[in-house]
Amino acid sequence: MLGDCIENLRKISPLVHNITNYVTINDVANVVLACGARPLMSDEPSDILEITSHCDCLNINIGQLKKYTVEGMFIAGKKQRELGHPVVLDPVGVGASAFRKETAAGLLREVGFTAIRGNISEIRTLSLGTENTSGVDADRADKVTENMLEWSIPYLKAFSERTGSVVAVTGNIDLVCDSKNCYVIRNGRPEMGRITGTGCMLSGMLAAFLAANKGNELTATAAAVCTMGLAGEIAWSHMQEAEGNASYRNRIIDAIYHMDGETLNKGAKYELR
Amino acid sequence: MLGDCIENLRKISPLVHNITNYVTINDVANVVLACGARPLMSDEPSDILEITSHCDCLNINIGQLKKYTVEGMFIAGKKQRELGHPVVLDPVGVGASAFRKETAAGLLREVGFTAIRGNISEIRTLSLGTENTSGVDADRADKVTENMLEWSIPYLKAFSERTGSVVAVTGNIDLVCDSKNCYVIRNGRPEMGRITGTGCMLSGMLAAFLAANKGNELTATAAAVCTMGLAGEIAWSHMQEAEGNASYRNRIIDAIYHMDGETLNKGAKYELR
Amino acid sequence: MLGDCIENLRKISPLVHNITNYVTINDVANVVLACGARPLMSDEPSDILEITSHCDCLNINIGQLKKYTVEGMFIAGKKQRELGHPVVLDPVGVGASAFRKETAAGLLREVGFTAIRGNISEIRTLSLGTENTSGVDADRADKVTENMLEWSIPYLKAFSERTGSVVAVTGNIDLVCDSKNCYVIRNGRPEMGRITGTGCMLSGMLAAFLAANKGNELTATAAAVCTMGLAGEIAWSHMQEAEGNASYRNRIIDAIYHMDGETLNKGAKYELR
Repeated sequence: MLGDCIENLRKISPLVHNITNYVTINDVANVVLACGARPLMSDEPSDILEITSHCDCLNINIGQLKKYTVEGMFIAGKKQRELGHPVVLDPVGVGASAFRKETAAGLLREVGFTAIRGNISEIRTLSLGTENTSGVDADRADKVTENMLEWSIPYLKAFSERTGSVVAVTGNIDLVCDSKNCYVIRNGRPEMGRITGTGCMLSGMLAAFLAANKGNELTATAAAVCTMGLAGEIAWSHMQEAEGNASYRNRIIDAIYHMDGETLNKGAKYELR
Repeated sequence: MLGDCIENLRKISPLVHNITNYVTINDVANVVLACGARPLMSDEPSDILEITSHCDCLNINIGQLKKYTVEGMFIAGKKQRELGHPVVLDPVGVGASAFRKETAAGLLREVGFTAIRGNISEIRTLSLGTENTSGVDADRADKVTENMLEWSIPYLKAFSERTGSVVAVTGNIDLVCDSKNCYVIRNGRPEMGRITGTGCMLSGMLAAFLAANKGNELTATAAAVCTMGLAGEIAWSHMQEAEGNASYRNRIIDAIYHMDGETLNKGAKYELR
Repeated sequence: MLGDCIENLRKISPLVHNITNYVTINDVANVVLACGARPLMSDEPSDILEITSHCDCLNINIGQLKKYTVEGMFIAGKKQRELGHPVVLDPVGVGASAFRKETAAGLLREVGFTAIRGNISEIRTLSLGTENTSGVDADRADKVTENMLEWSIPYLKAFSERTGSVVAVTGNIDLVCDSKNCYVIRNGRPEMGRITGTGCMLSGMLAAFLAANKGNELTATAAAVCTMGLAGEIAWSHMQEAEGNASYRNRIIDAIYHMDGETLNKGAKYELR
């Protein structure tokens, strides 16, 4: 059950190494703490091998990608895989430049990931190596809608088969697939798109869920995705008069801080396909 | 009217490229989302040309200036100007070092800006190339006071004439000038100075206002400045017992999230000189 | 008295140069503003000498340490010492890599510090040069507990004697020592450990307290440590239903914003040993 995944996380409290962009790095650290894990952020190539060796899992996020940090992504990614630890890729804005596309492709090829989380546009770019995405949000044409599910699910299962990664596509509907099964998740609120970094936060938290639930990668990923979406719903229900996206961001992290297995089990809205 | 400027912004939702400091980068991203635009933050010189080409406008902020990012400022700035897109300069702490002064002077010369926003001390440094500013706040002697308006306004109009930029000086009184006209704006609250980044946030938002209101640069700049000041007033009116600068920061972003044309038209306090 | 220290700080409003990690840099800036000082963040080696010369004190934080910024730490640290200004070291995660250990050891040797603030594990690593710390939190075995006080206090006094620095160890019990005296402080709440950056914020604020209370380094450090702990208690008393670590962070900064000498004198819980 999904609820067990967060209970395990709170018991084990894994140390999560994040190599991530500086836009949302503080929120990622606070959300990792909120879900019960411990964050470590380091992207210096010269000591990253030593630092990542202390950690239980790794989250690589290519938002605001810098040449300086790419080397460390490969070193840390390979080391964590060698240690048998979960590694997550968040291909933020991968379609925005050849540099990002090539880095992501190289990471897929040489590191390999336990799970990949992005919006549909980013995942398509990763998969096809040909798409264009502007900024960090899925192009409107690329949003997952009900009538896109029919082709999206087998497409994502095939991508999961090819990469060996659990694939999580988040948007108005979330899809979490391995090669055989797909969670279709309907938690969350559209207003979450008006906050920077809900995706980055989810990816950091996902690494923690995976580290605490080894052998149950698909379920753990679905649990992380439902936790974020449900936190968005709970947070919205607590919004006060005159509050907007800044307060909403805080309330989402707060809701994750209070999330427990029972709340998650009751609030998760998904079907398996 | 100022109100139309924010309504246009919400309709068009421009993609705003920000090359900005890491102190306030998260707040800048969230305020760009709050006003209805979409943020993209990237400062890696090697793919900045490709990335900026997807965007509708550019905001260059020299706070915490690094050698590594200067090249990208020139590349992106020139490209955006070539595309006919608005480019904003925020000369944070320009007087703090020769490196900042030279970078800003080079950007003024080689890129040129649709609008420049700073405090009076920063704008004077840019203009004279000789002043000293400590940190990011205007020196006390340099604050715009009622009896300084007489000389400040022609001074800023001349600077606008020379640079071809709309010049926005923010402080206890805000001045927004082109070569002929000056908005003297009396929105805002002194407590905004106790939050880091209200200036940076305004500059990011200003780029979005300009992109959505081409041909009306002076009005769009005045609208952005009034939006920030009015948001400061609205946010203050919602402050609860025991809240301080951290909550005030969130409430200001929240107030921008809810700002509409009617509220802006009613709340904007300005005269044209 | 401790209360005088914060009153002095609010009167003098020192300019605090911070060379710090990007995870918590925004919170550090806002907390420096909250306590009444002014923050400047710059880590570019090429102009750091010029920039630090405008400032009244310096805070060096090695969290997320990068090769690029190390040179500037030495330049700025030496300059500030030469100017007779307070310099603070926050050895975040110093045990996580040889690079961090060597940098910290070099800074101790070549710069020297007015005060050093860390958790017990970090301070022991600094002192012994042999310990391992994972991430940024004190290892559980390394927590300061009542029955550890007996050996901890002379150990820290000896470290202070050797370095000439006031040594502040923060955790469930806080210890602030010079070579002769030790404040044993029992302010704060365990939930503060669920927020990223309370230590970083304290170190930034500590530099400001020292700059405003020259000649009273031990008292000023104790005052800064009590201010943070007491702010954690006050903030907790204002927590609303459903609020968690994100809101708690804001409320702590807010509580510092409202802290005055009288509140600090009444709320500080310490004994001298």
